[in-house]
Formats: sequence, structure tokens, C-alpha cells
Amino acid sequence: MSGDRTLRVAMVGRGFMGAAHSQGWRTAPRFFDLPAQVEMAVVVGRDPAGTEAAREKYGWQEASTDWRATVARDDIDVVDVCVPGDLHSEVSIAALEAGKHVLCEKPLANTVAEAEAMVAAADAAAARGVKAMVGFTYRRVPAVQLAQQLVESGALGEIREGRAVYLQDWLSDPEAPMTWRMDKAAAGSGALGDLGAHIVDMTQFLTGERVERVAGTTRTFTTERPMLASNVGLSGTASTTDRGQVTVDDAALFLGALSGGGLMTFEATRVAPGRKNGLRVELNGTKGSLVFDLEDLNVLSYYDSSDGNEAGFRRILVTEPSHPYVGAWWPPGHMLGYEHGFSHQVVDLVTAICTDQQPTPTFADGLSVQRVLDAVERSSADGARWTDVP
Amino acid sequence: MSGDRTLRVAMVGRGFMGAAHSQGWRTAPRFFDLPAQVEMAVVVGRDPAGTEAAREKYGWQEASTDWRATVARDDIDVVDVCVPGDLHSEVSIAALEAGKHVLCEKPLANTVAEAEAMVAAADAAAARGVKAMVGFTYRRVPAVQLAQQLVESGALGEIREGRAVYLQDWLSDPEAPMTWRMDKAAAGSGALGDLGAHIVDMTQFLTGERVERVAGTTRTFTTERPMLASNVGLSGTASTTDRGQVTVDDAALFLGALSGGGLMTFEATRVAPGRKNGLRVELNGTKGSLVFDLEDLNVLSYYDSSDGNEAGFRRILVTEPSHPYVGAWWPPGHMLGYEHGFSHQVVDLVTAICTDQQPTPTFADGLSVQRVLDAVERSSADGARWTDVP
Amino acid sequence: MSGDRTLRVAMVGRGFMGAAHSQGWRTAPRFFDLPAQVEMAVVVGRDPAGTEAAREKYGWQEASTDWRATVARDDIDVVDVCVPGDLHSEVSIAALEAGKHVLCEKPLANTVAEAEAMVAAADAAAARGVKAMVGFTYRRVPAVQLAQQLVESGALGEIREGRAVYLQDWLSDPEAPMTWRMDKAAAGSGALGDLGAHIVDMTQFLTGERVERVAGTTRTFTTERPMLASNVGLSGTASTTDRGQVTVDDAALFLGALSGGGLMTFEATRVAPGRKNGLRVELNGTKGSLVFDLEDLNVLSYYDSSDGNEAGFRRILVTEPSHPYVGAWWPPGHMLGYEHGFSHQVVDLVTAICTDQQPTPTFADGLSVQRVLDAVERSSADGARWTDVP
Amino acid sequence: MSGDRTLRVAMVGRGFMGAAHSQGWRTAPRFFDLPAQVEMAVVVGRDPAGTEAAREKYGWQEASTDWRATVARDDIDVVDVCVPGDLHSEVSIAALEAGKHVLCEKPLANTVAEAEAMVAAADAAAARGVKAMVGFTYRRVPAVQLAQQLVESGALGEIREGRAVYLQDWLSDPEAPMTWRMDKAAAGSGALGDLGAHIVDMTQFLTGERVERVAGTTRTFTTERPMLASNVGLSGTASTTDRGQVTVDDAALFLGALSGGGLMTFEATRVAPGRKNGLRVELNGTKGSLVFDLEDLNVLSYYDSSDGNEAGFRRILVTEPSHPYVGAWWPPGHMLGYEHGFSHQVVDLVTAICTDQQPTPTFADGLSVQRVLDAVERSSADGARWTDVP
Repeated sequence: MSGDRTLRVAMVGRGFMGAAHSQGWRTAPRFFDLPAQVEMAVVVGRDPAGTEAAREKYGWQEASTDWRATVARDDIDVVDVCVPGDLHSEVSIAALEAGKHVLCEKPLANTVAEAEAMVAAADAAAARGVKAMVGFTYRRVPAVQLAQQLVESGALGEIREGRAVYLQDWLSDPEAPMTWRMDKAAAGSGALGDLGAHIVDMTQFLTGERVERVAGTTRTFTTERPMLASNVGLSGTASTTDRGQVTVDDAALFLGALSGGGLMTFEATRVAPGRKNGLRVELNGTKGSLVFDLEDLNVLSYYDSSDGNEAGFRRILVTEPSHPYVGAWWPPGHMLGYEHGFSHQVVDLVTAICTDQQPTPTFADGLSVQRVLDAVERSSADGARWTDVP
Repeated sequence: MSGDRTLRVAMVGRGFMGAAHSQGWRTAPRFFDLPAQVEMAVVVGRDPAGTEAAREKYGWQEASTDWRATVARDDIDVVDVCVPGDLHSEVSIAALEAGKHVLCEKPLANTVAEAEAMVAAADAAAARGVKAMVGFTYRRVPAVQLAQQLVESGALGEIREGRAVYLQDWLSDPEAPMTWRMDKAAAGSGALGDLGAHIVDMTQFLTGERVERVAGTTRTFTTERPMLASNVGLSGTASTTDRGQVTVDDAALFLGALSGGGLMTFEATRVAPGRKNGLRVELNGTKGSLVFDLEDLNVLSYYDSSDGNEAGFRRILVTEPSHPYVGAWWPPGHMLGYEHGFSHQVVDLVTAICTDQQPTPTFADGLSVQRVLDAVERSSADGARWTDVP
Repeated sequence: MSGDRTLRVAMVGRGFMGAAHSQGWRTAPRFFDLPAQVEMAVVVGRDPAGTEAAREKYGWQEASTDWRATVARDDIDVVDVCVPGDLHSEVSIAALEAGKHVLCEKPLANTVAEAEAMVAAADAAAARGVKAMVGFTYRRVPAVQLAQQLVESGALGEIREGRAVYLQDWLSDPEAPMTWRMDKAAAGSGALGDLGAHIVDMTQFLTGERVERVAGTTRTFTTERPMLASNVGLSGTASTTDRGQVTVDDAALFLGALSGGGLMTFEATRVAPGRKNGLRVELNGTKGSLVFDLEDLNVLSYYDSSDGNEAGFRRILVTEPSHPYVGAWWPPGHMLGYEHGFSHQVVDLVTAICTDQQPTPTFADGLSVQRVLDAVERSSADGARWTDVP
Repeated sequence: MSGDRTLRVAMVGRGFMGAAHSQGWRTAPRFFDLPAQVEMAVVVGRDPAGTEAAREKYGWQEASTDWRATVARDDIDVVDVCVPGDLHSEVSIAALEAGKHVLCEKPLANTVAEAEAMVAAADAAAARGVKAMVGFTYRRVPAVQLAQQLVESGALGEIREGRAVYLQDWLSDPEAPMTWRMDKAAAGSGALGDLGAHIVDMTQFLTGERVERVAGTTRTFTTERPMLASNVGLSGTASTTDRGQVTVDDAALFLGALSGGGLMTFEATRVAPGRKNGLRVELNGTKGSLVFDLEDLNVLSYYDSSDGNEAGFRRILVTEPSHPYVGAWWPPGHMLGYEHGFSHQVVDLVTAICTDQQPTPTFADGLSVQRVLDAVERSSADGARWTDVP
């Protein structure tokens, strides 16, 4: 059962991430024993009618169109930032300064400068016992947690090499229409920031190391697209008359040097037909290897060189009660899905707040990802030369 | 948004299925536009404290220990029956007679006689506009729906052959302890009723045919087990001193003849190490084949003989907006999990009630499964001889 | 290097199996150190021109159309019987009586009576130091050998359950033409004898147990087919005018009880679209499980329950020098193919002859398979009733 | 049947590649109808006893220790060069100048300069009707051929992106001993030349494009290893006392820009536990994708975006008579292995010689691979900067 304390949450933003975060807030207390009650207090959006509809649909108590007023309210304890990346910094900093715990969606910000300001705000807030966390939810997939535990335990030995890709296909068709995600002003970058952020964070999380140097390139294969006629899902329907300029990358490919001495290839793309949400990370150590694939979410593949004559990649179905987070859900072999990570995120954030621990990933973790992405852009502009990540 | 009508639900039972059904009632309105409001009104259990705890945990308005009084209440519209199989008949019939729409967990009943009485009650209720539905939720996995559509469209041609297995491993260890699931009085049968029911229903659903005859056997490999010392998950911890008699089957293996002329093998077991929830169905028609595996929930494999030189089993990731139920959830490649089927079940039941349609699977569908299972037991007792399903 | 002794071989038959056996005789000495020289002395066929062509193509020293004269020749040591099943008995017995070591293709014979006569002849020959072996080459796939070793070592514990299928699709199309394989007089049976023989033998080999009882059925889905206009591969082109009667089964499905107490399902079919050579065997013991799939020839999947939190089916690439037969071939990860089993068969037969050991599988092993198949046919005729295998 | 013409072959070298090439020369005529007879005339090695043993083992008519004399013999038509890379140039050029057709193992040479000289010699020879071919046998895996046909047909549209890796694990263990393959003088480079050559050639073959620019790095993780005490397979047993310096790379990772505008990542490594011969190439075009994995040799995965609601990667078993080379071998579903490519190579070379066509891959193709590898080394030395391939 939840404890006596109550945390009242305001969520700023109500799109795809708003739906996912709402599901996390709503569901976590139904399966996990949280140390506090959680109240879904306020959802904030720009458009009054749409925000009211979101309130009803997602089950928030109130709707508001004024995020500044909301994050200043005395009766709000946690601010959950689900707006596009160009607003992350402003909302998060205001909330932290108002003494609210903040969960900010990834990527932390669109620029390194913004991310640095956010880290400074988080540091200042931390001194006052206020928590800040960035929403790399894929860290909270049970198979990813198990992978991290195996690496940390030394099961793989030293990490020597790896490859991390995040492949999608919704821009393969040159006639797929423009959205805000292809506009640099709103999105910061394309596949690099959206998808690349995930594989960089996951690599750093799994290995416990930093990507220290990168050498790579970004590419826009289709520079002009039809404008969006109507909005459906990630892509929508194309206009037949108007065309717009794509100002972000379709793909980013780079090499990365890890602080422990290993080497990786990274690739983020939106033009790989048949790969829908194809985040795949493979790590090779001196003693074994790991493979995780987000399109096979409940599975971790693990090769233990010491298995000898019967060695082979083990297809571990990470659905046992002994596996991370799983005991709260269903019996073995009952699959978890994409949104479970959002419940796990709520569990860990609420626990950290109530036990006065620093939740992870921290804003500093988010900044470190931004710095890697920024170094990739600089390397790309500099003939793919090795570029240090500060 | 949901319509003006409100359906108030009482759920009888609060175990594993109670948790899953609660998640369905809670979540469906958050993603789907239902034609009615849904209120989680009453949860009913035997033990006051445990039921109150479940009320709070799962989010029901009231707790009750009196199912008879509850199903008779004027302010209840739907009764959701999640108790063990030996009570399905009594609760469902009482609810139907009280004019409540009924959702009853599978298997419909522990005996054919009970199931027949339930069908009679459902027929009588139907004449008064009251709906009854049995909870074979695996029918509502998107990949299974897509499979059914392909078969119905004729893509496979005539179904010639197939194999359906449901493999688990929690009784592989002869020292795994007794639970009510190994007691014939409470559970009716073992793997046959628990797991076999699923593969028979799925076969009949996918093919649109009946299993007309069966020839098979059931087997109890471990006839005596330690008693349960404490209850954790499906199995629990074993007592070191007391032992009990296993009175149900560990496994059932049988052949089945389909009404369309095809032949199948069926196998349900709890003693297959490494198979956690391994429901796998494969169908071969004159023009193509299908494979579905519950441990790879979001995938349907489909072989189209007309693909010619490039023919191969297609690994379809059933996560596109155009796939059944998927549009309400996440973008392509974002995995759904076990519990999503319970939300889909709520969507379909509420829709059927509001549009005055017969929801499926019907009690008659549930009875037909029970008759197949009963015929398997009779065949097993008769030297595995072909035994007609009435 | 090969020893001083020389074995001169005569091969009777020159079809698909003749090609495969020739490849075995030709290749084995090039990779393995045999204890004898092998000479491909005589190939025997019915048609002089075709046999001469085969001689040249496959690299035999002489061609003959007289198998009786050939098996009587003093300068022949080994007779390799690759003719259709209706001739296995006559040729093998004559050869054994003439004191020749015999390798006979599977299935041992078309009838139990013939197989019994062959065993009697083999026993009589054995007393004179003459060897007889039946050609279940799939036993000699390295992954199958490794599987057998694991079972024998106790790694799986007691075998409780399993499923063995052999699925092909070349008769899915009702207009695929007649060949001798659909004619009972020549072929004995259809999928049962051709494919079922393999899965019964492999089950008995892997488990070290006998299939003691069966309950099952055979089925001919397409009873009339166009006659063969021209012969290409297994199927050929269909005549547009003439049609013939199919007198063998398209499929056989049965349950089997193992001598150790386990239960299996078996299925052999030629009407499963997309399955080309889909022999798949899965065994579940009290401690672990195994899966082998002939369409993934170099892989053995193994689940070891004692792997605990990191348990998962291990995809063992059976291509290490430490794996059976592999050291003679290529480095790790270099795939072996279908025909390598025929080389391994030659290695084991030649070694057995030179060391005066009984090669396996014996004719008695082949007979035991025939008795299982015969019991399936009797069960099928008796309402699928459990039928003892003598 | 083979034609009247006879080609007499001399093979220089008798190691791992000598065994594989011998198998190709021996086997091709047994399955394919070649336009000429092939005679395995002479095998050449350094050590008389070892060469005589190889002659007997592999089935050559004569053994010789004098490659210069052999390639000058009038009765030799074809010279097959299987020696280590540092000798490729000298032997091949001498053979071509002597008017012999030449098959040279990959990589073409250890340096670009040598490779250029070889191309010049091949060009001069071509003017006299003499053929030269480099042995990238993986091009001749049926699944790879089918992939190339699909790309060439336009099925994938324009190639946008891809990833090619060749992962092995035999140097994961820092105590694995030194061999000539870790000595720059003999091997030229490490994983880059040995494994990287394959993935560059395969990419260029599949796409029909050139790798125009590269940006990358090479790495030696273990710079000192125990000396080899005895030679077994690729690695051997380690000395416990002596240690040697590793002078080649363990791994190479690089980006590549294709002449058609696409981008790729490449990785060649010997330190990836569990990957034994893990060459894997994935290509994404505007209309579809392909995946080939050498550890799943008989399979091509193909995604056709136009498959719509039933789109999914098709697991094509490339074993149909209609697939490249397959008709000469076995029925569908019967696996081919590593060495079949060497037979296909013989078929294509002999056919090209007899029909006076240029066989592929040409020496120019081999040179183009060397230039890519050389550019990788230059890029590695230049901070991973984009480096043009001449």
C-alpha cells in the first residue's frame, strides 16, 4: 500500500508522450507499492479545448493552459515535462526554481547550452532536496536492467566493442509529409536527437562508461517534402500542392570511443524499411556478449564464453519474478509492453523523492548525451574527424 | 469521448485474473473511445481485509464479501466473473437472471453440465437483451486478430493441417508444491482445462471451424507433491514435511479433426523447461501458412505460396495503425503486452452492450471448448480412441 | 592417412540417394583419416545409358545393370543399397549372404515382414563378421550427435515430453503431379514411411528409448492427381489430361509413448506450405530441454534449468572443433550442409568394418522404426486406439 | 556432361584454403555440367613431405615444391593461388605471364601497389584471352546471388543506408596465441584485410556501387600474445614462456559513402564472443530492405514495403531449384554449406574460360577492395577523417 504522503503531479504537454506518461502515473500505483500516494492533478496544454479533452481522456483532475501559473502552485509537488524539446529548458528550470521535483522527457534539451542551464538548475535544486530526472525510459525495460546488472557484475569482462542502432522507416518514402519533427527550430535535430539520444544513453547506462570521442556524419536524404495536410500518428497525410524544406537529418552514423577503451558504431535513421522501432544494442566484452532489441522487448541475448562446449547465445525471456520490476506484474512468459517503462519510471522517481535519493538518469546524464550528439554534429561538419566530447 | 450512458461494473474475484481484469476496465477508456462511461463500482471477495486491500489497490469504489447481494443490486450493470472455475456457473447464472451483462473468465466451467446450464441462462438472458461473453482474451491479441482475418479472407485456402501447443514449465520440478490448481475439486482439470482450453478456442476462432473429433491422452507425471507452505505467484514455496496428492493432469496430448476436414495435433503441458507461456499455433492451408507464438506476442508469421521465388515466412510486426486495435495505442514498433487483451475485451464488450450486438466469444463458444476437453478425457479413458465432440 | 586395407564399394541405385551416397564415398577420405582406402568400384542401375552417365558423373569405376552379379563379385566388399524401398530387402539380403557389408538406405523396408527377414540376414551375417547398417544419416548431423550426448549425459534428466514433426510442402498444391512416391506398390506408404521414419528414428536415437505404443491416423487429402508429364526433382511437371490415383498418405499424425515413460506427438506431412525440409524435434526432460531443426542444420537449442536467473534457450552453433565430426571440416562458424551426413556415415561404417564393431543404426534399429510405422497404420485403421509396438 | 576440352589445374598452397579449393575442383564436375573436363594436376607446397601428404589427401595427381616451374609447365592451364597474401602478387603475375588462367584467393594482395601490378598483369593477359579472377567466394552463396538480383532488379529502390559487419571471436581471449595472421609482414593487416575485405566486396557486389569514401579507425586491443606452441586450426595452443608482438589490428570500424549516395557502417573484428563467422550485411533502400547472415547461410531476409498490411521480413530459404546454383544440388530445404561456394566458383571460372568471357570478381574488383582498405588505414592515421578511395 502507498504511504501517507501524497505527491500531486502536473504534466505539461499532452501529445504522444503525454499519453505515455499519464499511463505511467495511472498504472504504477496499481501494481507497485509506492511510498506515497500519487494524484494526477493538472494537465497543461496550449489549446483549451484540446487540453480539456486530454484531461478527461487521460484522467487528470484539472486542465490548464498556463504552465507558468501551474508550476508555481503550492499544491503541486512534481512537474512532468512532456512538451517538445525547445521548451524543456524553460519549463524545467521554472519548475525546479519553484521547488518542484521535475521529470523531463528526453532529449534533455535541443542545445548543449540549454542542457547546461538545466543541470545548473538541477544542482541548485538538489541542494534544497528537490529532485530532477530525465526520461530515458528504455533504461527501465527489465531486459535492459538485467543487461546492466550483468555488465556491472563483470560477466562480460572488459567491454571491447559494440554496435548500437536505432532504425525506423517512416521517412523512407520521399513523399512522406513534413511535421514539426523535420523542422530544426522545433526539433533541434532529426534522427540524431530523437533516436541517437536513446542509443547513446543506453550505451552509457549499460557500460557504465562515457562516450569520450566520436567521428561521424549526419545526412538528409530527402531535403524537400510535401507539407502536412492532416495529422495522424507520427507522419500524417501529405498535401498535394505545398512542399516544405527539411532542416534536420534523416540519419546519423558515427563511431564512438568509450572511456574504458572500447569502440562502438552508432547509427540512427528513419529510412530503414521494415524497422519500426529497431533499437538494437550489442556489446562484446572479453568474457561474453549481450544483445538487446527493442522490437523483441522481453528478451535479452547473452553469450557466456565459459559455457564451453554448450556455449551459445541464451535467449533469456526476462519475465521471471526474479527479474527487475517483473515481480509486480504477471507470471513468467507474460509479455510486458512499451508503456511499462513509464510505470517503472514513476516507481523509481516517487521512491527517490520519498527516500531523498538522487533519481537516475540525472540531468547530468542527459547533458552528457547532448554533448555526445553535439560532438557528432561538429565531427560531421569537420570531415568526420574524431571529436572530443567535453 | 465516451457516450452519455454509464455502465457500472462489479467484479467477483480478486486474484491474478482480478488484477488483469481491473487493468482492462481501468485502461480501456483511456485509449479507446467507448460508447459508454465505465465505473469500477464493486469488487467482491471472500475475505473482508483482502477484499478491501484489493479495492484500494485496483481502484474499485466499494468492496463487498457478498456476491449474491452485489449481483442483485439495481445500480450494477455488468458482472465480471473472475473466481475459480467451480464457481463460474453459479455466479454467472445468478447475474444473468438478475439482468446483468456477464463477462466470465475462461474456461467457462469445470464441467460440461455446468457449461450447458450457463448457455441456457445466457440464451434466456439474450432474449431480454442481456449479454454474456467468455474471456478468451488471447483472441484479442492484434496478431491473432490479423491471423483470423487472413484465414477468413481465404489467404490460406482450405486448412489442411496444424499444430497447437501450450507449453509451460512450472511443474517440471517434481518438488514444486501443490496449489489449488493441482486439485481436481477446485480446478476441474490440470493443463487440459487451463491451457488446453486456450488452444482449442484459438484453433476454432482462427479457422472458423469446430474440433469435431479428438483422440488423445492425459498424464500426471508427478502424482504426489509437497504441500504449499506459502503462496507466491503461481507456485509458491514447498513444505518440507507434508505431501499431497495431485488429482489433475500435468499434460494432455491429442489429435483433433476439424469440421472443414483438417487434422491437428494439440498439446498442453506444465512440464516443458524453458517454455514459460508457450502458446504456439501453426496452421497450414492449401495456399499458405500461419504461425503465432504468445511468447512473441506482437508478431505473426505468414507464408504466402504465391510469393514465388521470394516466398518466405513473413515476420509481420503487428503494430501498425492499420492492424486490429493498434491504432488506439502507440506508433509502429512499440510493443503491446499481455494485459492489452483485457482492454480490448472491455472495448468489445462495452461496444456490444451499447449497440445491442452479441459479443464473442459467446457462452456457446465456451461450451464448445468444454465439450472438446470433455471428449479428450473420454478418449483418454477409452484407449485414445477417436471420440466425437457432441 | 588411410590404412593399407582397401574396401571396394558397389552402389545399387543412382537417383537422389545415389548422388548423395556417392558424394559421401568421394568426400569422406578427403577430410577424415579412414582406417581403409575406399574405392568407388561399381554403380548399378536398370538402364544402361543412364547408369553409364551416372558412373561418369558420380565417378564410379564401372557401371552395371546386373545387381545380382555385382553383389556376388569377389572384388566387392561393401554394397550400398540406394534403390526404392520395395527392393531393399532383396538386394540387402543377397549381398549379406554373399558376405558383403551392407549399407541400406532408410526406411529399412516397405513392410515389417521384409524388415524382419533383413534383420535375420544381418544377424546371420554378423556371426560371420559381416556388417549391416541402415542409412538414417540425420543421426550424423553434428547438432544431433551433440543432442544425443547431452541426453545420455543426463543433462535433461528424465524425458517427459516431446514433439517431433517433419513438414514438407511439395504436395500442398492439389495439382502437383503423381510420382512413384505416391504409389503404394513402390513406396509402401507416403509421408509416414518417408518422413515419419526419420522422426521416429531420431526420437529413439536421441532418447535411447523405444516408442512403445502409438495412437494415430494417416490421411490422404488429395486422392487423385495429374500424371507426371516429365520428371524434374521430387515433383516434376503435370500432365494436363491423365489423372492417377494416390494410394499413399499425405500426412500421418500420432501420439507415442516412450519406454521411459514420456509422451510425444509426431507428425509427418507433405502439405505444409513454407516448410521445405522441416524436421524439428523438441524434447523436454525434468532438468532441461532441447530443440533441433533440420532447416537450421548447424544449430542446437538447449535450455538448462540450472542456469537460473540467466536461463534461456542457448543457440549453440555446432561448428566447434570439439563438436562431433566438426574437427575434420572447417573453422568455427563455417556451416556444414545436408550432404556432410553422408560423409560421416561413410566414416563410421568404414571404421566399424575395420575395427570389427557393430555399426549403428543397425538393421534392428531400422526394423524397430518399421514396427512403429506399422503400428501407426494399425492404430489408424482401429480408430486411433493405442496400439502396442511389438 | 563435360565437354571435350580439358583444363589441367595447378594449385599453389595447401592450407585451409587449399583444402577448400580442392573440394571445389573435386566436387563441381560431380553436380554441374561443365563445358570442360577438369584435372587436378599438381599441388605445390614448400615442404616435400607435407605437400605429398596433401596431394594424397586432397587427390591431386602430382606434388611439387617448385611453384615457378609448375606455373611454367605447358600442360597446366589454370593456376589456383592459395598461398598467404604476401605471395599472391608474385605467383599470380608469373602465372598470367606464362599464359595461365589464374584464380587468386582474397584479398588480392597485401598492398595496393601489389594489387595494381596484378591488375596490370591481368589486363595484359586478358588481351591474350587469359582470364584472371579473385576468390571472393561468398559472392557465390545462393542467398547472396539472390540478394544481388533483387537489388539489380530495383526491388529495393535506391540504396540509402546499410551496415556490414564481420564478427569473429577467436582473439577475444588475450591469451590466445600468436600466428602468422597477427604478423603484419605475412598478413598485411589483421581483421581489416582478412574480414573487412569480405564485407567491402560484398557491399560493392550487392549494390553494384563503389565505396567512394571512408572514415574510420583500426585497433589492436591486445598488443602482446604468447607464442604459438603447436598449430591447431586458426589459433593453436599457447606457449607458456615466450611472448610476441601483435603487429596487426584486432578490429576495424569505419563509415563508408557509396557512389550512389548511400551511407554504411562497417566493422570487422576478431574479439566478439559468440560470433564465429558472423558476416552480416543489411541494406535499406527506398522500397525495401535485405539482410544476409553467413551464420544462417541458406537464408535471405527481404522486406518489401509494398506488401502493405502483411509486410514483414520474409525469411526466404534459398534452396529452391529456381534459386541460383541450387538446381544442381538437392531438393528444397536441404541445406548447403560453406564449401559449396568453392564449387560454384569453379563452375563460373571454367564456364568463363570456355566461353571466353571475363569471370568476376575481376582483379580490378579485388584492387578496388584493397583501395578501400588502404583508405581505411589512411583515415585511421588521420584522425578518422573522410578519405577518398582513388
